[in-house]
Amino acid sequence: MKSMNYKMVRYVLAKVLLLEAALMSLPLLCALIYKSESTGAFLSTIFFTTFFAFVFSVRQPKDTMIQAKEGFVIVAASWIIMSIFGCMPFVFSGAIPNPVNAFFETVSGFTTTGASILSNVEALDHALLFWRSFTHWIGGMGVLVFILAILPLSKKNNMYLMRAESPGPSVGKLVPSMKKTATILYAIYFVMTVIEILVLYFFCDMPMFDSILHSFGTAGTGGFGIKNSSIGYYDSAAVDYVIGTFMLLFGINFNAFFFIMIGKIKDAFAIEEVRAYLGIVIVSVILIAWNILPQYSSFLEAVRYAYFQVASIITTTGYATTDFDLWPSFSKTIIVLLMFCGACAGSTGGGIKVSRIMILVKYQLSEIKRMVNPRRVHVLKSEGKVVDSDVLSGVQGFFAAYMFILLGCTLLISLDGFDFTTNFTAVLSCISNIGPGLGMVGPTCNFSIYSDLSTLLMSFVMLAGRLELFPMLILFNPALYKKGN
Amino acid sequence: MKSMNYKMVRYVLAKVLLLEAALMSLPLLCALIYKSESTGAFLSTIFFTTFFAFVFSVRQPKDTMIQAKEGFVIVAASWIIMSIFGCMPFVFSGAIPNPVNAFFETVSGFTTTGASILSNVEALDHALLFWRSFTHWIGGMGVLVFILAILPLSKKNNMYLMRAESPGPSVGKLVPSMKKTATILYAIYFVMTVIEILVLYFFCDMPMFDSILHSFGTAGTGGFGIKNSSIGYYDSAAVDYVIGTFMLLFGINFNAFFFIMIGKIKDAFAIEEVRAYLGIVIVSVILIAWNILPQYSSFLEAVRYAYFQVASIITTTGYATTDFDLWPSFSKTIIVLLMFCGACAGSTGGGIKVSRIMILVKYQLSEIKRMVNPRRVHVLKSEGKVVDSDVLSGVQGFFAAYMFILLGCTLLISLDGFDFTTNFTAVLSCISNIGPGLGMVGPTCNFSIYSDLSTLLMSFVMLAGRLELFPMLILFNPALYKKGN
Repeated sequence: MKSMNYKMVRYVLAKVLLLEAALMSLPLLCALIYKSESTGAFLSTIFFTTFFAFVFSVRQPKDTMIQAKEGFVIVAASWIIMSIFGCMPFVFSGAIPNPVNAFFETVSGFTTTGASILSNVEALDHALLFWRSFTHWIGGMGVLVFILAILPLSKKNNMYLMRAESPGPSVGKLVPSMKKTATILYAIYFVMTVIEILVLYFFCDMPMFDSILHSFGTAGTGGFGIKNSSIGYYDSAAVDYVIGTFMLLFGINFNAFFFIMIGKIKDAFAIEEVRAYLGIVIVSVILIAWNILPQYSSFLEAVRYAYFQVASIITTTGYATTDFDLWPSFSKTIIVLLMFCGACAGSTGGGIKVSRIMILVKYQLSEIKRMVNPRRVHVLKSEGKVVDSDVLSGVQGFFAAYMFILLGCTLLISLDGFDFTTNFTAVLSCISNIGPGLGMVGPTCNFSIYSDLSTLLMSFVMLAGRLELFPMLILFNPALYKKGN
Repeated sequence: MKSMNYKMVRYVLAKVLLLEAALMSLPLLCALIYKSESTGAFLSTIFFTTFFAFVFSVRQPKDTMIQAKEGFVIVAASWIIMSIFGCMPFVFSGAIPNPVNAFFETVSGFTTTGASILSNVEALDHALLFWRSFTHWIGGMGVLVFILAILPLSKKNNMYLMRAESPGPSVGKLVPSMKKTATILYAIYFVMTVIEILVLYFFCDMPMFDSILHSFGTAGTGGFGIKNSSIGYYDSAAVDYVIGTFMLLFGINFNAFFFIMIGKIKDAFAIEEVRAYLGIVIVSVILIAWNILPQYSSFLEAVRYAYFQVASIITTTGYATTDFDLWPSFSKTIIVLLMFCGACAGSTGGGIKVSRIMILVKYQLSEIKRMVNPRRVHVLKSEGKVVDSDVLSGVQGFFAAYMFILLGCTLLISLDGFDFTTNFTAVLSCISNIGPGLGMVGPTCNFSIYSDLSTLLMSFVMLAGRLELFPMLILFNPALYKKGN
């Protein structure tokens, strides 16, 4: 096997940084408009990032061939490097002086997690708030899919990058060209974000700045709020239902929107995963509304809060309009189960994904049938197609890896001494890219309680979750860097 | 497919009851010796059980052919029916007046879980204590393996029963005949139990009655104590180390003892699973001893308590010499991870089993290698043999089913309103057949806090865990009972 093409890795990473510097011009613009104190911090970060990017990209490598392993390294390293440079405005401005915390906050942004170490979000100035929410929007569709649209790479190279960024069941190729697929997805993403901004601004009386930032957070299924009480600040049923519904929309498999776009509306609703996803939402809302009824003044109010919180958690966004840590145990446990589940594959959401859960459940059912009637042939199907044994063990292996990382990291951060529920749901929230957990990391709390070591560990857990585990695991595999391997 | 052979199911179940009635003569003897108040309860239970068994076994069915599905039904129904009749002495004597609680206690006995709803164990008389611990010993090796030795069934029938009772990676056929295999296993089991009784009695100054009952609990990896403070009552390092070591021995794959028995000592220690199991024990003891050091007077004392608790949890026994719920968070989380892990396949212990964990981990490693180097062939091996895709998805599917049942039942019992840690570890403790959990079901607490519905649900979770999930899932599959299916 060929040695790693380090030059190409370096070159692509430099291009990623250049892109990031360009993207930072938006918060800079925001800083200038609002005369934010952090203007200098953004200016120096952009200068520093651009300088760095130029130095490392000035020499284009002769050998532009990359393979699977370079794909994984590029993807994993891109997200890490973007977070390292992306956290500089927080550090330089003094808003988050501890670099580890700033890194966590930025990783939480790019991975669309929304877990925060800030106890007082409202202390940030407009530019920092903008950048914080904008990282959600950037991270939402995957940085690399974006890169595809701007880098002059061969088709094969594109494939390795795309596969590395989403090795699970994912958005199918909508059209033969990867680049066109990426462009269509971005168009859908962009248009839906704009619609949400307009609806919030015109129909919900939300200020323009707030509308834009909350739409970034919704579209990326991120969840960074700009008020200490998150969306609960607005205390408006209209806002709750609009953002709740947009969260659910961004949690849907983007294939469905593509079908709707080309007029095949029936096909959109025929996607098994979408139906299961909506089914889970409806059942969860009903059960929780019934369970929390005594805490609210009417059934309608209970439904409103149940709907928002369920939409927020299953799509792994993490906005809150109420403190679900105060709900009865049954509702809290439903929330925990939704944290595992996550949204549809091919959406901006995280978690295990509904399609994987469906394959796991279908396997159990077919296994039971096979045991009862060993002579009949039992075929496992998903979305009308037969699931072969490689895909099956891939899905099952993903589930096991997910649980192992969850339990292993729960153990490691337990060294900080907090209780099991807090640690378990903190890591669960990170690996599923949600934001809040239960107990001391509940919706009204934050992650600042943890030590630097745990904060760093959870940053990598968020990255692992966002990249569907394997790229991150591969990056830390020493065999990868051996010569001639 | 042929209809279910109900007559044969009924016939075998009747024989199982007859066996149970015979086994109850031992606690009856104990009742007579100690002049226990429960003598009448045992007499009437034995009479009732024998009568029932005779009525249903008087007509031997003409068609004795059974297939896989009858195998599963017989196994699952045997355990349920044995628990129903087995709990009668507790109800009749008034020791546990609530039949649901008595059923839970008996299921907990037969499944070798050791979770109790009693807050004052010492209030039970000798005969009831004997029966309670004796159910562990009976359940330890699987009722059906025992049945194999006494029922005149064809070889093929035996196979279906054996497979149903242990569908996972399990004790291999030591010798060609299933019956001989069962006999050898029972001999090892019996001899080791006797040795433990003698060591406890002669070297640890434990009364004979206590020695016998604790050895029953150790051998079956059950964990019902006869004192309110479990083994901690004796406050003796010798007792701790002897019982701790015997727990670990009963958690080892019985193949190893067979190898030692026939002189192949090297082969015994070459079993990958046994080495991994001992490795996990050593690492856990060191980590916990280091972590709990501030709570104990010396490192040696910390090791003593760490050793006993680790041995008790990984073997899924559940005896306690200290309240690990008071340990620091890190040690408690190790305990939770050990609850998942469980002992070796082919031992009397429960849990996921070390061999399954090993296959799951090896798959992840091979998957990472495959991603880095897709062209090379990566073969998954276990105990020197290639793991084919059917076995792999079986193991992975088991893991998923285990997690689904764990999380699903945590949700259901959360309706009782207790906290997440309590509910999660209560179900985990039941499905892995351990006994104690954390929080309100910690080592010094008991399961009486739960409602009857939750208690019943957890009884079935214990049964599902003991039978490696599938027989219990199959029993509740309506398709099984359709005519002509």
